[in-house]
Amino acid sequence: MAGPVLVVGAGLLGTSVALACRRAGVEVLLDDVSPEHLRTASGLGAGRPLSEGDLPRLVVVATPPQHLATSIRAALDTWPDAVVTDVGSVKEAPLTALRAGGDDDLERYVGGHPMAGSERSGPLAATAALFDGRPWAVTPHETSTPQATDVVEALALLCGAVPTRLAPADHDRAVARTSHLPHLAAVLVAGRLADAPPAHLALSGQGVRDVTRVAASDPALWLEILGANAPAVLDVLGEVRAELDALIGAVARPGSPDLTTILARGNAGTAAIPGKHGGPVRPTRSVFVSVPDHPGELARLFGDAGEVGVNIEDVHIDHDPGRPVGLTELVVEESRAEHLLAALESRGWTTHR
Amino acid sequence: MAGPVLVVGAGLLGTSVALACRRAGVEVLLDDVSPEHLRTASGLGAGRPLSEGDLPRLVVVATPPQHLATSIRAALDTWPDAVVTDVGSVKEAPLTALRAGGDDDLERYVGGHPMAGSERSGPLAATAALFDGRPWAVTPHETSTPQATDVVEALALLCGAVPTRLAPADHDRAVARTSHLPHLAAVLVAGRLADAPPAHLALSGQGVRDVTRVAASDPALWLEILGANAPAVLDVLGEVRAELDALIGAVARPGSPDLTTILARGNAGTAAIPGKHGGPVRPTRSVFVSVPDHPGELARLFGDAGEVGVNIEDVHIDHDPGRPVGLTELVVEESRAEHLLAALESRGWTTHR
Repeated sequence: MAGPVLVVGAGLLGTSVALACRRAGVEVLLDDVSPEHLRTASGLGAGRPLSEGDLPRLVVVATPPQHLATSIRAALDTWPDAVVTDVGSVKEAPLTALRAGGDDDLERYVGGHPMAGSERSGPLAATAALFDGRPWAVTPHETSTPQATDVVEALALLCGAVPTRLAPADHDRAVARTSHLPHLAAVLVAGRLADAPPAHLALSGQGVRDVTRVAASDPALWLEILGANAPAVLDVLGEVRAELDALIGAVARPGSPDLTTILARGNAGTAAIPGKHGGPVRPTRSVFVSVPDHPGELARLFGDAGEVGVNIEDVHIDHDPGRPVGLTELVVEESRAEHLLAALESRGWTTHR
Repeated sequence: MAGPVLVVGAGLLGTSVALACRRAGVEVLLDDVSPEHLRTASGLGAGRPLSEGDLPRLVVVATPPQHLATSIRAALDTWPDAVVTDVGSVKEAPLTALRAGGDDDLERYVGGHPMAGSERSGPLAATAALFDGRPWAVTPHETSTPQATDVVEALALLCGAVPTRLAPADHDRAVARTSHLPHLAAVLVAGRLADAPPAHLALSGQGVRDVTRVAASDPALWLEILGANAPAVLDVLGEVRAELDALIGAVARPGSPDLTTILARGNAGTAAIPGKHGGPVRPTRSVFVSVPDHPGELARLFGDAGEVGVNIEDVHIDHDPGRPVGLTELVVEESRAEHLLAALESRGWTTHR
């Protein structure tokens, strides 16, 4: 993929795209209405400010959602030979806004949506590695050219991401299901806790923390997202309401087979989610180890695991500052678990099979 | 708290209670209908098999839910001077079953519910540390004696847990909210993914994985739990259905203030959940570090963090086997984050602020 690439909007996503392009040796130009963001981003090595005579071949629009359509249109007009893409989380809405004025000169525009890092914001939180292994939706509309689509897909690959092609409306239905619904479910569950008595809340465990974690996000961001994807979100909420009614009926009828069906469908759904990086789920197993609660011990544990060549997929540390020992959960590939257990035990670790 | 303690049912919870009591130097007797579980548990050092002439002062009933009431009754009858408790996840149902036969000699019985470790099962998965820092509900009913209640609370403390007293029905309402509802929400969200096209599922991120994780649990266990706690679960599901209707109405009306209200209530709910070990939430901050993807590097990272004395609260490892570098998220106390960042940077690590 040839440069220069112009990034419009030097926030978290824009600056990260810029840094990823720089990492790959591509020339990057930067533009932002805020001189400070521009200074910060170029100071981080993300590129140099756009200047007179520059001719970008690809423009990545990374402005706030309300300016997307205008910025995309401006980019298409200002650089008549450039491909234009964006990184917004909803794809149909900007197209609708672009077409609203009778605009049909959109063949050099192909939308995109990297699924990464929206919890943090601003250029200082940016990283070239933000998209590594992440899904990146590439969403050509009906008049997008194949060449423009290839360029946007090449950008995603250059940034280390895993591109998936979807039609814009199809993308919106997908994220309603895989992102917006989970968020709203978390909000509904958390909402039931907001006024709960402290004695009730005291019984909170890992499950409710996992389910409600995403509900701590900034409401302003979600108002924007839900507003832009209302039709697809309403569709999936309607499905959930029907299923909730079925669930209520099933719980009210002891021994109902419907409850088993609903629970089994939940099981099937979790198995359907692909492994972290888009491939099949590599079966993992958790190995539990008692770890005296100070930093050096964890390093020793990882050192020992490393010596026997077992890769740690994930770690969960459960420790109580008032207790001398905590239980650490190492998630490893299933086929390596026994080997790791034996190795740790021979090195004096207390494991829990 | 004086022994001997008799544990009836040498599964995960029973054996873990036994190991915790042994850790505290209390004499433990074991009983189980399965000779193999009994052998395994005593082989693990959890206690010795119950024999003729033994006189337990406390009996902990840790049988499967369908045998709870019978086992509690049997314990009360067999040892007329012992306090009897259980570790079941629903408190009102066994009481109802006990009273069904006109039984009112229940003053030595005080229910309990340690909130720990139900994802694994069997004595081999047991650990003395299972309850460390965990909530443990102590649920005296109206005729329980204060002395019996004190004994059960002492057991919880001995096992390293944080006891909370609640009336049985109140406990059931609490867990409906903090455990059963989150599980059912996860099931409903995961259910929407079960038949989704692969291209949709490809866009899954951390949010949907967090929300749906608990939906991978064994349906048989949850059928049992929901059957035993149906009234409280139906109450909270009814609240959620009303809120879901409000949410659907709000999403359908762009700019509706109701949507902000619902999202804000979700925020408030997440803030209401206490810190992992029952205290206030210690504010944490995430520090992101690029880690070359092989085991030795993670050990080196932890070693460096340990050298500067920063305790790691939690870790999230996001790595793609096809990529040489992964992003590791270290969760530390907020006040230590800058210190850790500076220390890691001075040791050559690539951090992402």
